[in-house]
Amino acid sequence: MATEIDKNFLEKIEMLVDSKDDKTLLSLLSDEHPADIAEIIDELGLDDATYIFKLLSSEISAEALILIDEDDREKILQNLSAQEIAEEIDELDTDDAADILSELPQERVTKVISEIEDDEHAKDIVDLLRYEEGTAGSLMAKELVKVKENWMVPTCVRKMRTQAQEVSRVHSIYVVDKDDVLIGRLSLKDLLVASAKSKISDIYIPKVDSVNVKDDVEDVARVMQKYDLEAIPVVDDNHVLLGRITIDDIVDLIVEEAEKDYQMAAGITEDIDADDSIFDKTKARLPWLILGLVGGMAAASIMGGFDEALQLFPELFYFTPLIAAMAGNVGVQSSAIIVQGLAGDNLKGSKLNRLLKEIGLSMVNGIILAGLIFLFGTFLDYQLNVLFTISISLVIVIIFASLIGTFVPLILDKNGIDPAVATGPFITTSNDIFGIFIFFFIAKLILGF
Amino acid sequence: MATEIDKNFLEKIEMLVDSKDDKTLLSLLSDEHPADIAEIIDELGLDDATYIFKLLSSEISAEALILIDEDDREKILQNLSAQEIAEEIDELDTDDAADILSELPQERVTKVISEIEDDEHAKDIVDLLRYEEGTAGSLMAKELVKVKENWMVPTCVRKMRTQAQEVSRVHSIYVVDKDDVLIGRLSLKDLLVASAKSKISDIYIPKVDSVNVKDDVEDVARVMQKYDLEAIPVVDDNHVLLGRITIDDIVDLIVEEAEKDYQMAAGITEDIDADDSIFDKTKARLPWLILGLVGGMAAASIMGGFDEALQLFPELFYFTPLIAAMAGNVGVQSSAIIVQGLAGDNLKGSKLNRLLKEIGLSMVNGIILAGLIFLFGTFLDYQLNVLFTISISLVIVIIFASLIGTFVPLILDKNGIDPAVATGPFITTSNDIFGIFIFFFIAKLILGF
Repeated sequence: MATEIDKNFLEKIEMLVDSKDDKTLLSLLSDEHPADIAEIIDELGLDDATYIFKLLSSEISAEALILIDEDDREKILQNLSAQEIAEEIDELDTDDAADILSELPQERVTKVISEIEDDEHAKDIVDLLRYEEGTAGSLMAKELVKVKENWMVPTCVRKMRTQAQEVSRVHSIYVVDKDDVLIGRLSLKDLLVASAKSKISDIYIPKVDSVNVKDDVEDVARVMQKYDLEAIPVVDDNHVLLGRITIDDIVDLIVEEAEKDYQMAAGITEDIDADDSIFDKTKARLPWLILGLVGGMAAASIMGGFDEALQLFPELFYFTPLIAAMAGNVGVQSSAIIVQGLAGDNLKGSKLNRLLKEIGLSMVNGIILAGLIFLFGTFLDYQLNVLFTISISLVIVIIFASLIGTFVPLILDKNGIDPAVATGPFITTSNDIFGIFIFFFIAKLILGF
Repeated sequence: MATEIDKNFLEKIEMLVDSKDDKTLLSLLSDEHPADIAEIIDELGLDDATYIFKLLSSEISAEALILIDEDDREKILQNLSAQEIAEEIDELDTDDAADILSELPQERVTKVISEIEDDEHAKDIVDLLRYEEGTAGSLMAKELVKVKENWMVPTCVRKMRTQAQEVSRVHSIYVVDKDDVLIGRLSLKDLLVASAKSKISDIYIPKVDSVNVKDDVEDVARVMQKYDLEAIPVVDDNHVLLGRITIDDIVDLIVEEAEKDYQMAAGITEDIDADDSIFDKTKARLPWLILGLVGGMAAASIMGGFDEALQLFPELFYFTPLIAAMAGNVGVQSSAIIVQGLAGDNLKGSKLNRLLKEIGLSMVNGIILAGLIFLFGTFLDYQLNVLFTISISLVIVIIFASLIGTFVPLILDKNGIDPAVATGPFITTSNDIFGIFIFFFIAKLILGF
């Protein structure tokens, strides 16, 4: 489908930039989709990227601009004048324009806005910039097709033609009353099959989903996914129509959130790629490793406190990695299920019920695993009392680990902290420490060293 | 927005079912979106669910049917006759109809299909059933709006009206030549602003993205996300238009894949919810725990082999959980980055380059962490030669762990195995074993016990 952006293609582009062969460059790039142009720009050095960017018509470069990596975009925008940025902004939908402006320093924003030609467009963008990140307002675009309930179909079609030229994609047509209050929608399909003599109030669908401008974007994503919506209108507290959110932004949001949760579970804090620099990767990975290190030191101290057992029951020490690993694995499993349940908003039932179920589950798992240890251990000629100690401790450690895995994300969520942080190194490390302590404590009780 | 489906509401529904108060039930449910009806049905017992399902008009129940949990759907469908299922199928788009039929036993499928009233619809569904799961064909619907290039706009609009009645959502209008070969598209916006005197060949856009019917669905998702498409036409090898895939199916696919990868990284094999039964959860979790158990037993054996060190250097044994945890954490971090890079199809550069970068990164991390251990350890009065051993081993273990984390998913992917399986317990367990072995091996070399 798309041109493969390989090394040869990039070298060709670099050569053409060096020789300033604008004509060949333009003919080579004019057939590319802005998403592919963005990929090419991401791969080039800053000077070459800026050259290409300025060479392209702002119609294409603007669309590419919103798809370039944030770091590259920042650098390219630094190389552009306020007027050049305004030309790009002129081509963009209000939501994308506001996203780009929100990345610039405040004084540049003011300059760029004063250079935007279309006053209406500028006003809409300024309006969007007020909404807090993470709210429906920050994701919506002002471009939409809306019709008044008292229009006749021919008036409606005429007015819609003008509006449609402003809107890159028509989804639903929203119906408002005289005060701009959203009262329903008109589907394009209905319009295609409607007679010219109808009035909008006769043919519109009075039922329309909407979200409040202050709603959380993750709730918006959930609603749009659940009801299979391609666009959803955004209203204020008085139900006045303000804008709309389209599914493409939601798809990006879902993918971003999923990647963030996945990386967080793996102990990576910042959004990094396989090809980022060693410095960026270290910054994202090292804090979690230091956490693990501190946990390991704590575990070492705990074990040092039980050194009386070293002579009599060295096997206890051989089994600490097993106990730690099981505590970690069980904790991660439990927390992952809770984190996903919270993300999907489908945790039902009471806390007590969850507690009992989790204890039941971990007892079943723990007893099976303890049985296996006993079996293997007998086969390997371990002392019976040591095996018994390890098996009993394992069951108790697993129960504790699963309770910590279940309730830590619930508690974090209740306190407004992203529960995803709980899956991964955080749970693994704390469960290692708890697990090893419980193990030696029980061993001391049973074996009496 | 939506009615909160709480306990009270469900109890009310159950009471109404008990008293067979169909009128109140219908008036209560008629305003609900099929997605909410599906949620209600998921929460009810089988008898109540079937009762509600049969009570609703097939227009609503059919839409709810595709959203019900697979397990519940299977049971409800067992309670319906072939003719009743055919009535539901009649209401559904071909892609959803095919999805539901593909879950039924073969002989039931044949019966249901023979009961479908609309022969054309039945033929389309049978056609869709041939495509292998995971291909674009398995995800596409036959419903679409297509026009011939030689039509005039008025003819086109007339013909489209008929087609649009069959299609629940019009996205793009596809333009084909006389042999049904896809040659372009007509956007709805263009149609709204087009003059009645134009011919389709004058106004259509000759550039149209498409996917082959045999393409992998994940590639389709990537293309649709990258190019912000809401629908994409599906063609065969001769570029004949066969169907289209819409973004709502892609959103579901992306969410499902993300959940699966997340669960796999946490050591959970099957798609389970927080509210599934203990048996289902054990089935999904226990295999990974057994893997961890076997790994732990292996680690215990390795340590048992170095028992000469027990008297002289007990600290080595206290530090094994730390070494194992670091090896596991680093491995998971490295593999997560590769798994995401593979999923996003954005791994660039050569293998050698990746190898060198990964070694560089882990040396930087390893040396910082080793320095910290040395610092803490001196403060805690550990023997210098033991601290030195632990620090050196840690650097080497981290390098190994990151290489395993990097290359295991790459090798799995090359062999057609989902690389996501590598993140989580698999990497943690193997890195625990390798880490502990390397640790004691190096300790023996340095300390000479």
